[in-house]
Amino acid sequence: MPEPTWTLSHVQRHIKALYGAKDASRGIEDTFMWFMEEVGELSASLRGDARHPLKEEFADVLAWLATLANVAGIDLTSALVEKYGQACPGCHQAPCVCLGEKP
Amino acid sequence: MPEPTWTLSHVQRHIKALYGAKDASRGIEDTFMWFMEEVGELSASLRGDARHPLKEEFADVLAWLATLANVAGIDLTSALVEKYGQACPGCHQAPCVCLGEKP
Repeated sequence: MPEPTWTLSHVQRHIKALYGAKDASRGIEDTFMWFMEEVGELSASLRGDARHPLKEEFADVLAWLATLANVAGIDLTSALVEKYGQACPGCHQAPCVCLGEKP
Repeated sequence: MPEPTWTLSHVQRHIKALYGAKDASRGIEDTFMWFMEEVGELSASLRGDARHPLKEEFADVLAWLATLANVAGIDLTSALVEKYGQACPGCHQAPCVCLGEKP
């Protein structure tokens, strides 16, 4: 499937098609713990642990974030666009000119 | 901007346009710590902490994941499609029929 079809909404629908039945029965807390396990593996990978290929760990964290959003009933597109769609939510500029870090 | 344009690639480019200059100078470790701060706020929000609106926290975690991928030189579309694009990477079925959990 070509890249332009991989919208955030498509990612959420795709992950739901693959895992929706399991996800619905697991609940928020248990899903969050699986998400955190992948976040830990991403950390290991970023430190250079070859047992955790970096690209795969980013895929896993993103897939579990999509799962978590599905279980919590959050539309990631709407969430991102509302907060970051126009400009930095801190300084209201693009690019961000906040003093210090991101808001 | 309509929803269909919010591909994973667009998300990475948009976040880079807003924050790329700061992100490039921060480095992986410090970026990961900011990502983790937002993951913690997402956890609080999922527990019902009204100081952290759920939709905003999902937006923040996704934005920081995109930043982390930008800094690490990872294309999220390619990462997700390679691992999850066709079917479950564990059982190679869609929907997943793995025994137990996701792979």
